[in-house]
Amino acid sequence: MTNTPPAKSGLTHIGTMGEAHMVDVGDKAETIREAVAEGVVRMQAETLAMIVEGNAKKGDVLGTARIAGIMAAKKAHELIPLCHPLLLTKVTVEIEPDHALPGLRVRAMARVTGKTGVEMEALTAASVACLTIYDMAKAVDRGMVISDVRLLSKTGGKSGDYEAES
Amino acid sequence: MTNTPPAKSGLTHIGTMGEAHMVDVGDKAETIREAVAEGVVRMQAETLAMIVEGNAKKGDVLGTARIAGIMAAKKAHELIPLCHPLLLTKVTVEIEPDHALPGLRVRAMARVTGKTGVEMEALTAASVACLTIYDMAKAVDRGMVISDVRLLSKTGGKSGDYEAES
Amino acid sequence: MTNTPPAKSGLTHIGTMGEAHMVDVGDKAETIREAVAEGVVRMQAETLAMIVEGNAKKGDVLGTARIAGIMAAKKAHELIPLCHPLLLTKVTVEIEPDHALPGLRVRAMARVTGKTGVEMEALTAASVACLTIYDMAKAVDRGMVISDVRLLSKTGGKSGDYEAES
Amino acid sequence: MTNTPPAKSGLTHIGTMGEAHMVDVGDKAETIREAVAEGVVRMQAETLAMIVEGNAKKGDVLGTARIAGIMAAKKAHELIPLCHPLLLTKVTVEIEPDHALPGLRVRAMARVTGKTGVEMEALTAASVACLTIYDMAKAVDRGMVISDVRLLSKTGGKSGDYEAES
Amino acid sequence: MTNTPPAKSGLTHIGTMGEAHMVDVGDKAETIREAVAEGVVRMQAETLAMIVEGNAKKGDVLGTARIAGIMAAKKAHELIPLCHPLLLTKVTVEIEPDHALPGLRVRAMARVTGKTGVEMEALTAASVACLTIYDMAKAVDRGMVISDVRLLSKTGGKSGDYEAES
Amino acid sequence: MTNTPPAKSGLTHIGTMGEAHMVDVGDKAETIREAVAEGVVRMQAETLAMIVEGNAKKGDVLGTARIAGIMAAKKAHELIPLCHPLLLTKVTVEIEPDHALPGLRVRAMARVTGKTGVEMEALTAASVACLTIYDMAKAVDRGMVISDVRLLSKTGGKSGDYEAES
Repeated sequence: MTNTPPAKSGLTHIGTMGEAHMVDVGDKAETIREAVAEGVVRMQAETLAMIVEGNAKKGDVLGTARIAGIMAAKKAHELIPLCHPLLLTKVTVEIEPDHALPGLRVRAMARVTGKTGVEMEALTAASVACLTIYDMAKAVDRGMVISDVRLLSKTGGKSGDYEAES
Repeated sequence: MTNTPPAKSGLTHIGTMGEAHMVDVGDKAETIREAVAEGVVRMQAETLAMIVEGNAKKGDVLGTARIAGIMAAKKAHELIPLCHPLLLTKVTVEIEPDHALPGLRVRAMARVTGKTGVEMEALTAASVACLTIYDMAKAVDRGMVISDVRLLSKTGGKSGDYEAES
Repeated sequence: MTNTPPAKSGLTHIGTMGEAHMVDVGDKAETIREAVAEGVVRMQAETLAMIVEGNAKKGDVLGTARIAGIMAAKKAHELIPLCHPLLLTKVTVEIEPDHALPGLRVRAMARVTGKTGVEMEALTAASVACLTIYDMAKAVDRGMVISDVRLLSKTGGKSGDYEAES
Repeated sequence: MTNTPPAKSGLTHIGTMGEAHMVDVGDKAETIREAVAEGVVRMQAETLAMIVEGNAKKGDVLGTARIAGIMAAKKAHELIPLCHPLLLTKVTVEIEPDHALPGLRVRAMARVTGKTGVEMEALTAASVACLTIYDMAKAVDRGMVISDVRLLSKTGGKSGDYEAES
Repeated sequence: MTNTPPAKSGLTHIGTMGEAHMVDVGDKAETIREAVAEGVVRMQAETLAMIVEGNAKKGDVLGTARIAGIMAAKKAHELIPLCHPLLLTKVTVEIEPDHALPGLRVRAMARVTGKTGVEMEALTAASVACLTIYDMAKAVDRGMVISDVRLLSKTGGKSGDYEAES
Repeated sequence: MTNTPPAKSGLTHIGTMGEAHMVDVGDKAETIREAVAEGVVRMQAETLAMIVEGNAKKGDVLGTARIAGIMAAKKAHELIPLCHPLLLTKVTVEIEPDHALPGLRVRAMARVTGKTGVEMEALTAASVACLTIYDMAKAVDRGMVISDVRLLSKTGGKSGDYEAES
């Protein structure tokens, strides 16, 4: 990579002098923007069975993780230094067992009518839901791994729609 | 796994009636506890080169992610519903390029003199540092993936030391 | 009540599968919305006299509770999991003695130009102002009771105006 | 009540000049302290039936309110201006239907090994759990009332144990 | 100054009865508003040299203070009781050495498309960046002084533009 | 100053590789530590008169700033990236008019029984109280300046007591 300006300016949060800053989104249009992100928690089959069974009866591990993910979406701009605050109009977090992993698959969706995208809100929701699952099951399985936290799709906004390759 | 009561009680945050609660750590000893967690952000080689080059000159992407991770460790108990508040005595976040991935490898360490472990603080620091990297480079690479967020080691506390298999 | 689907869907935060989520307000109109909520703290007549007398001279118990209520209105969406963030344009909290209770009567008003109502912001302001009064007077009266926290009125928005029966 | 100095100093958060301040707890002993608080949400019988039925199947209204209450206990010192920060060692929130009200009865318990009591943490947990119930059911019943938020018992600490009259 | 009502009403956050409240901005126009604020940290020449030298090599003191300032701008409405929440569209913090002081000069800019000005966001960013510099260098120089925190300019909004006298 | 390693290591938050980190305080003794900080808001004599007069009658500008300062002390570790969380046992904020400035003089005191000093808590309290005064009076005087924010004294801890030169 040569050090031509266009390559350098690809990192939008870096100013001309290299300092980090919140980029200006004042001129962006207020449109409906949506992002869907995913993450998984890999675990032992016994751990998954314990969570699912507990859940079938009382719903608490997955319910708690869902709530944690939704609340975290509202905190994304507090956690990520250069992330803009915005008024989320909808957030959902869904978690389902994937016995092939084995583990749990978390899918988070965030939507806004605003000037900036909501990828970070969806990714933060998915990450914190995964962390919450780890917290609640760590007494039985410290070897769980959070993986594949990624953006699945994104719509709205000038930069165009995005769909992850499956 | 049979559904005997001991197996069920493995999920420490679930009460006898199945409701989530913060477990009692009042009787635990105040000892020095430490945890190290890791996470990676996989990205295109060009993205990694851009970050590393920018960093060599000005240090900002990695510097910002490090700060975000440290601050997030202090917020773990606000993000994770059943996580106990505690007084972190030390937090470090280190990030280094791994050209084999290609991507960045984040390692977070948290230490406390207290009644509960700091796994969640270390894991939260690693996760939020990864999210911050994603945020700062997403304009050039939306396909980045956060993976392998896991506990590397843990010392102190009644449940004994833990070392992840490499 | 029969278990027909319409009845079930009355709980707007419950998805078709029963999981909690933040409902979509993206299609709602941006209108001026206002809500007024009330709450009381019942206490011994001596406690009330002590607060009022102190207040007449220096204004601090009631002044502190007012500030706490206003600040809490701005935190409603952080406290209540499925509450949308919004940009409050006005908040007021008024507290006056009611010797018939005996106790203090807190009235909070919140206003927004936005897509969702501000009932929760007004109710949160009233609740936290009451909790602050409790905190500041609890050394002399642990038997105080917070009661009658309710919505007095609501204007703006599709669901129509609301006025509590007195 | 005469305006003798001892009576005035009953309000521990008021300084000699009348300004609010966080009282000094540095000399207090670190002991195990516990508080239990209660609150109720009165509602129409139909609303209660809807919540309970939904809960029986999926557990989400009550589960969400429980989580909100637990998380709020950790935020009490951020909401209540003169409340000391402390390291909660245990928090539980229990919610059960009371068909005689009709409504829901919330009971919150907080425990700490520390220098100050946890009444405000327990009361805040109960209040926010009640507010969350209101939020999730308000679409079907705006007339719900949060009442009887009070301290049930308190143990540990110099000021002695407390038990509310039933 | 005589106690005529106009003079009294100059303090916009004081109600007719003297209670503090968040003033109503609901009728204000949504315009682009910007504010620039400044602050300095005076220190010993040796302290400045140490920071600048460290910075030239690794950028961390100034980089950390910049991030802290940007994140604080997003928290202004949580810190300042009567400050309205708003959706910042841009924030920058620049820090440069001023050998004549000797010390560091912090300049913060905040921009919004909204109903209220962003002076407090810019001033908060500058203040917290200064506090962070103090924190990171206090081990070598406890006598540092934060001074001249002031508004440099303000544009947009009904009250007209403002430019500080130099 | 030569660039010898000892001089370099004076900046305690900079690691051997130059990255920022929270320094380890785990080995420090738990002692009573106290810090007193000061700050002033310079303003026009008319502005001061207006605040003082308003205050004499209703106490709100100064009362609000005092509360804001106390609450900010509890948030210092959230605002300042490398600041350790701690359990403040006492915080006071006093504000008095200084007609010679003319302006207001804010004095904040923080105390803890802990492993780290409370300078940043006292300085943050003073700064945020000053910012709150600015916010509440800015409609009549945008030229106010926050100055002389500094540590007055510090006791407890290994590094010894500190007293600012007057």
